[in-house]
Amino acid sequence: MLGVGSCISRTSVLSQTTTMSIDITVFKGSPNGIVEAKTSQPLPIGNQVLIRITHSGVCGSDEIYAEADFVLGHEGVGIIQQVGEAVDKDKFKVGDVVGWGYVHRVCGKCEQCLHGHDQYCTTAEYYGHNNHHQGSFSSHAIWDASVLYKIPHGLAPEYAAPLMCAGATVFGAIEEHNIRPTDRVGVVGVGGLGHMAIRFLSVIGAEVVVFSSTQSKRTDAMRLGATEFHPTQGAEKFEGVKQVDHLLVTTSSLPDWTPYLSVVKARGKIFLLTVSFDNVVIPNLPLVAFGLTVQGSMVACRSVHERMLEFAVRNKVEPVIEQFPMTRDGIQEVMDRLKEGKVRYRAVVVAQ
Amino acid sequence: MLGVGSCISRTSVLSQTTTMSIDITVFKGSPNGIVEAKTSQPLPIGNQVLIRITHSGVCGSDEIYAEADFVLGHEGVGIIQQVGEAVDKDKFKVGDVVGWGYVHRVCGKCEQCLHGHDQYCTTAEYYGHNNHHQGSFSSHAIWDASVLYKIPHGLAPEYAAPLMCAGATVFGAIEEHNIRPTDRVGVVGVGGLGHMAIRFLSVIGAEVVVFSSTQSKRTDAMRLGATEFHPTQGAEKFEGVKQVDHLLVTTSSLPDWTPYLSVVKARGKIFLLTVSFDNVVIPNLPLVAFGLTVQGSMVACRSVHERMLEFAVRNKVEPVIEQFPMTRDGIQEVMDRLKEGKVRYRAVVVAQ
Repeated sequence: MLGVGSCISRTSVLSQTTTMSIDITVFKGSPNGIVEAKTSQPLPIGNQVLIRITHSGVCGSDEIYAEADFVLGHEGVGIIQQVGEAVDKDKFKVGDVVGWGYVHRVCGKCEQCLHGHDQYCTTAEYYGHNNHHQGSFSSHAIWDASVLYKIPHGLAPEYAAPLMCAGATVFGAIEEHNIRPTDRVGVVGVGGLGHMAIRFLSVIGAEVVVFSSTQSKRTDAMRLGATEFHPTQGAEKFEGVKQVDHLLVTTSSLPDWTPYLSVVKARGKIFLLTVSFDNVVIPNLPLVAFGLTVQGSMVACRSVHERMLEFAVRNKVEPVIEQFPMTRDGIQEVMDRLKEGKVRYRAVVVAQ
Repeated sequence: MLGVGSCISRTSVLSQTTTMSIDITVFKGSPNGIVEAKTSQPLPIGNQVLIRITHSGVCGSDEIYAEADFVLGHEGVGIIQQVGEAVDKDKFKVGDVVGWGYVHRVCGKCEQCLHGHDQYCTTAEYYGHNNHHQGSFSSHAIWDASVLYKIPHGLAPEYAAPLMCAGATVFGAIEEHNIRPTDRVGVVGVGGLGHMAIRFLSVIGAEVVVFSSTQSKRTDAMRLGATEFHPTQGAEKFEGVKQVDHLLVTTSSLPDWTPYLSVVKARGKIFLLTVSFDNVVIPNLPLVAFGLTVQGSMVACRSVHERMLEFAVRNKVEPVIEQFPMTRDGIQEVMDRLKEGKVRYRAVVVAQ
C-alpha cells in the first residue's frame, strides 16, 4: 500500500516509528528573506497523496507573504510518490504528474460547491491560514486527492506550474464570465497574469488591447498575440482608443480607474483580478450611467481548471517563463526580481 | 391634423403665426428655489406628440439639480393633446394617457440599442443637458413618440408617474439582471426607489431583507412586503443576519460598504442604483476573494419598462405617494420635504 517511490529515498528519510512520516525541506518567508527549514509529516492515509515537487511557479501574491512564517508557493507541480488507501487508482497513481494551485477544501455540499463554483466554497480553509507546511516551495507535499489536477501529456511541468494560479485566474474570468471570441478585451498590466490573458484571449480569436505603463513590453505583448498596445504612464484618458467590451485588470496594485472608465463600453465588465488590501476607489456616476460591472474573480472552479489544462495542451498555450533552482538562494533571487518587477513573465523554481 | 384638444385652450394660447406654437408654464430650478416661467414651443410635427401633463413624480435626483436653470421633473404622465403627421395612430392618439421617464433619444442603430439595452444608447442626449424645456414640472411637453409609454388601463396616473423613474430603476435591475423569485435580496434604503423595490420583490415571492438607518420605517417596510428589517445606524457589521444573494443599494448617497460586504454571499451582486457624484470606495479583497459583483444600473430599457407597467397592473403594484399641487409653492414644498428626507415614499405633483 505504501509503495514509496525511489525519489523519496533520494531526498528524504522515512522515520522508523509506528507512525511513518517523511522529512520535508521547505522554504518559508521571514523578515530577513527566504529561510530553508525541515519539517516532518505523516505519510498519506485515506484520500491523501504524497507528491515529490519538481516545479513551482512564483506568484505576485507570494510577495505579499514574503515575511510570513509559512511555506510560500501555490503553483505546484510534481510526481506522485505514494497514495493513501482510499485514493481512486483510476484517477491518481504513483508516477503521475499532478499540479495544484491556491488550495482550499472543497466540501462539495455548500451552495457554492453544488453550483460548481467551488473556488468560493463557503467552508474553504486556505493553506496559508491553517497549515504552515503546504506551500509548493518545498521538496514534497501531501494533499487530499480532491485538490489535485492531473497534468495532461503534452504539457511540460515547467509550463503547467504557472497555469495553476496565474493561468486559472485569467482563464477562470474568461470562461466563467463568458468572455466571447468576438469581444474586444482590454488587458491592464503585462505580468504573470496579464501575459497569460493575452495568450488565452488571442488564441480564442478575441481582439486584445493591452494597457501597460511604458512601451517596454510592447514587442513582447504583440508577439504574445495583442492586437493593440497603449502605454498608460501619465495618461489621463486614452484618446482615440476604441472602447472595449471588457477590461481584465491584472496589475499587482490597483490602477487609477478614471482613464479606464471612458474606454469601456456601456454594459462592459471590469474584471478585478488584483490581490490587494487597498480599497477600490471608482467614480460612481459612470458605473450607473453606463451600466458598468465591476466583477471580482478568483482563480477558477475545478471543472474550469481542468478544461483550461485540456485547452492549453490542444492550443499550445504556454507561459513565458524564467527558471531558477529551488534552493534558498534561487528562491531569494526570484523574490528580489519579483519585487523589482523584473520577471518576464513568470518565474518557475525547479527542484534540484 | 392639428386637432388641438380643449385643454390647450384653457391653459395656453396658440400663436397665430405661420409657425404655430404653444405657450407652456414650466417650473425650473434656481439658487433661490423653484421659479415659475413661461416658454413657447412649436406644435408637434412628424413623430412628435403634444401632452398636457397631469402628474409628475419627484425624484431624489431632482434635488441634485434644484439650483439648475432648467425644468425639473422626469416622471411625467399626461394626456395626448395633439400628434404629428407621422405618429402611428395605432400606438398613440389624442386622449391617450402616456408617461415618460428620464428621456433620451433611442437611435435604434447603435450596438446598445440593437441588443435591446436602449437606456445606454451611445448617442443618447438627455433632456437636462440639451433641452431646458422638457422637464415634467410643466403644463405641457412635446416629445418624440418613441420615448413615450402608454399607461395601461387600471393604472391610475398618480401611481404611474413614480414608476417612470423610481419603478423602472428597481424593476430594470431585477428584470435585466435576472434577480430570481427564489433569491434573498437586501434592499438598502427605504425611499422612492427602496419602497418600490420592496413591493416588486415581495410580489415575485423573493425574500426581502431591508436595511434602513433607524427603526422608523420598520412598520411601513414590513407592510410593503419585507420579510426582515435591520437598522444600520452605527452598525459595523450585521451580526446574525443570514447572507443575501443580492443587495439593491437605493440610498440617495453612497453607504459605507464595509458592513454590507459580509452580508452578501459569494458570487452575490451589489446593485448600485444611487445617483451620486462621489466615488465608490470599497475594499478590494472581499470583491476578489468572494467573486462579488458591483453592478451599476440605470432605469430600464424600453421593453422592460413596458413589461413593468403590465406587471404592475396585473399584480396591483402601486407606489405609496404624497400628492401636492403642481404650482410654484407646491413644488417648493416637495423639494423642501425631499431635502429633509420627509417624503413617504414618493411625492407626486398634480396639475391644477
